[in-house]
Amino acid sequence: MTTTLPSPELIASFIDIVGSANALTNPADLAPYLVESRGLYKGTTPMVLRPGSVEEVSRIMKLASATRTAIVPQGGNTGHVAGQIPREGKADIVLSLQRLNRIREIDPVGNVIVADAGCILADIQKAADDHDRLFPLSLGSEGSARIGGNLSTNAGGTAVLAYGNMRQLCLGLEVVLPTGEVWDGLRRLKKDNTGYDLRDLFIGAEGTLGVITGAVLRMFPKPLGHQVAFAGVGSVEHALALFDTASSLCGTALTGFELMPRLGVEFTARHIPGVRDPMQTVHPWYALIDISTSDSAESAERMVHELLEQGIVAGLVENAVIATSEEQRKALWHMRESMSPAQKPEGGSIKHDVSVPVSSIPSFMKEADAAVMRAMPGARICSFGHMGDGNIHYNISQPVGADKQAFLDRWREMNAIVHGIVAKYNGSISAEHGIGQLKRDELVEVRSPIEIELMRRIKHAFDPAGIMNPDKVLRAD
Amino acid sequence: MTTTLPSPELIASFIDIVGSANALTNPADLAPYLVESRGLYKGTTPMVLRPGSVEEVSRIMKLASATRTAIVPQGGNTGHVAGQIPREGKADIVLSLQRLNRIREIDPVGNVIVADAGCILADIQKAADDHDRLFPLSLGSEGSARIGGNLSTNAGGTAVLAYGNMRQLCLGLEVVLPTGEVWDGLRRLKKDNTGYDLRDLFIGAEGTLGVITGAVLRMFPKPLGHQVAFAGVGSVEHALALFDTASSLCGTALTGFELMPRLGVEFTARHIPGVRDPMQTVHPWYALIDISTSDSAESAERMVHELLEQGIVAGLVENAVIATSEEQRKALWHMRESMSPAQKPEGGSIKHDVSVPVSSIPSFMKEADAAVMRAMPGARICSFGHMGDGNIHYNISQPVGADKQAFLDRWREMNAIVHGIVAKYNGSISAEHGIGQLKRDELVEVRSPIEIELMRRIKHAFDPAGIMNPDKVLRAD
Repeated sequence: MTTTLPSPELIASFIDIVGSANALTNPADLAPYLVESRGLYKGTTPMVLRPGSVEEVSRIMKLASATRTAIVPQGGNTGHVAGQIPREGKADIVLSLQRLNRIREIDPVGNVIVADAGCILADIQKAADDHDRLFPLSLGSEGSARIGGNLSTNAGGTAVLAYGNMRQLCLGLEVVLPTGEVWDGLRRLKKDNTGYDLRDLFIGAEGTLGVITGAVLRMFPKPLGHQVAFAGVGSVEHALALFDTASSLCGTALTGFELMPRLGVEFTARHIPGVRDPMQTVHPWYALIDISTSDSAESAERMVHELLEQGIVAGLVENAVIATSEEQRKALWHMRESMSPAQKPEGGSIKHDVSVPVSSIPSFMKEADAAVMRAMPGARICSFGHMGDGNIHYNISQPVGADKQAFLDRWREMNAIVHGIVAKYNGSISAEHGIGQLKRDELVEVRSPIEIELMRRIKHAFDPAGIMNPDKVLRAD
Repeated sequence: MTTTLPSPELIASFIDIVGSANALTNPADLAPYLVESRGLYKGTTPMVLRPGSVEEVSRIMKLASATRTAIVPQGGNTGHVAGQIPREGKADIVLSLQRLNRIREIDPVGNVIVADAGCILADIQKAADDHDRLFPLSLGSEGSARIGGNLSTNAGGTAVLAYGNMRQLCLGLEVVLPTGEVWDGLRRLKKDNTGYDLRDLFIGAEGTLGVITGAVLRMFPKPLGHQVAFAGVGSVEHALALFDTASSLCGTALTGFELMPRLGVEFTARHIPGVRDPMQTVHPWYALIDISTSDSAESAERMVHELLEQGIVAGLVENAVIATSEEQRKALWHMRESMSPAQKPEGGSIKHDVSVPVSSIPSFMKEADAAVMRAMPGARICSFGHMGDGNIHYNISQPVGADKQAFLDRWREMNAIVHGIVAKYNGSISAEHGIGQLKRDELVEVRSPIEIELMRRIKHAFDPAGIMNPDKVLRAD
């Protein structure tokens, strides 16, 4: 695979496929496609192609394949690991899926949406809602994240407890392969055991095996009951015990169970307009509990009261509020979703997206906190996340008054400390964000050589020329 | 890969690994490993190896790899597509996992069981039950089917609606690769986005990519409420409308929704000891509805009554009974699970395990019935199954008084008719049983060349020597 700039003739051939209006080459036009949200990576590219059809994507890949030109698929550019950003100093061409944003079909009886990969997540949610259905994937960036990216990173978000990750929300895929051939796997079947699971291989592959261009997504009946509670708890252990109680009591009606530290609540109240601490009392930890029921509105109400009562009696819940309106429910979720942005005004933040077995969360956090504080006295740990999934966004804000760049320069060092403890618990260094460029070189350290070897063989089997989003997930040979 | 008989020296080397007591070569000892339940396939083998440890499995595969000896992994030998049976006239060695049947660990807090692949499904269910947890996979052969086989076929069964297939019930795997290397993927994480999804590739691969030796399985809180109802309905359309109602009303509390024809109920009442039609009235179709609730026993009761009431008011339910004891609930399920064995005394039965989008079930069945009756007047169609999953076991019993062998000789012809109509609905020719040998040559007809080509590349990437359960799923090159 070549890394030299494509010739003017090749550039012209790519332009021919999408038309000049959809082939960007002007540096100012390219800029938004080259930086990811956290500003950790900045890529270079000779051009951004914005195809308007699957046929055009196929022609782009055919030409790329014939000329060994590296292609980087990109959706809403909201990824956190730079999987969607072209490599620095190379000549990767960006293939933006933004114009492939048509909802092809909505079938409320079959409970499926067939959509182009470039549809914005919030538009899919709205389309389902318009048909009195729920598309449950929900995450902070839903206003700009696109379905193809959600699929390529097997996105998680806030409703995984009840509905699963993107992998569980997708029945079928359409993928343009590195050769330009189109795999039509747009099936709508709940059960299909006919050979190897190609769908789940493309999901989470971060665009390194092919370009997802379309998907069959699952919709669900809208819940009749919805309750959100916010509980102050004394410790992570107590939060875990409360989660266990909620799990037993609510089963799959427990749609979310999010953990937040006092520091995070303070950050959001301080920096995010409209967010305020809903309680007068102060607690070291908080749980946001989301319950959705399908049989009636009353059953959610019964459950939330029963849960808090049991939690208080067991000494787990110190204080709690239950949202009494949709507005209040949204406000509580808004606080949770502001945890990450609220860290920004506090200076640098070193992030981790880790998971451990749910029952190990308290001991993992105790150990990680101690190690981080030893290495960096004054560090402000703001770890929050999807407790019910064992997924903690273990973020570290810089010490007050510290130099931001000097702090951020210790990113790898702090990663090594936290991920070392994750490894002890047989956890994951990327619970939901993926590997991309950010964690690529760490992946080979935390996974066995045979696992990396199997991944390499899959990559080679699907993309022998190595043109498909190279150097992401795995380093190119 | 050789198909000639292994030399006495090679045989001796294999025996050395497991010890002579666990290396069967006597024809009488081999017999039970060579025939599958329906008697459609009979294989040949020089020996059956019964390793007692993962280490022994690894040594077997190393030797097989070095000598290019074909290996067929086998669990409980309950598969329906002859994936677990060695090829006829070849020299495949059977690797039985039956002795690898230890439950390695039960963690009721983390809600996981870590088990050897040779554990019997019913033993896993019981182990979970002993810890006040539920392992939801349930199917007719659970008393002899083994976890490794359940995983290798991505088994479905009767609780898929609420809990998913085996793929959703497994968090991690341990697999011995064709080379003898061991992939330790025994993770217990709910979320883990670190590279390609190897787990879901091995699940459902029918032992053609490696030998599953261990797994981390998910457990769930035991439901507090459980109700089973049996409803007579006038048509498949009405059954579908009732399913939609149940789905909206119960959400994930709807654990099962099974469709049965009058003929099937008659067959079970006639041939299965202890089964009787629970209603005085006669109906063309029946739905078995299973509801499990986690918040209280009462909510299941409320739901089942509300559902039947709505069904009666809407003219969907003609008559219904609700089981009032655990014994009655078991009896209703026993009738459903006897649908297949009850066909045996009626003569030959040509089976299909198909799926279509749920909303297409009525039109699919109408079309298939008409085509089958045109081709074979007098055929007795006994199609039943997991309506909520779109999965119909479309079985055809021979005409009364017909010659059994002459009827069975038309297996492929009837398959072609039914599967042709399945294809029209973009359905699957194997919803839950897999491909094995039985559907291997049909797979290439119903899937696109590029899909088959991708599967071949995966097979080659994992098993370049072609020794791992060859000629299953895909024909060996």
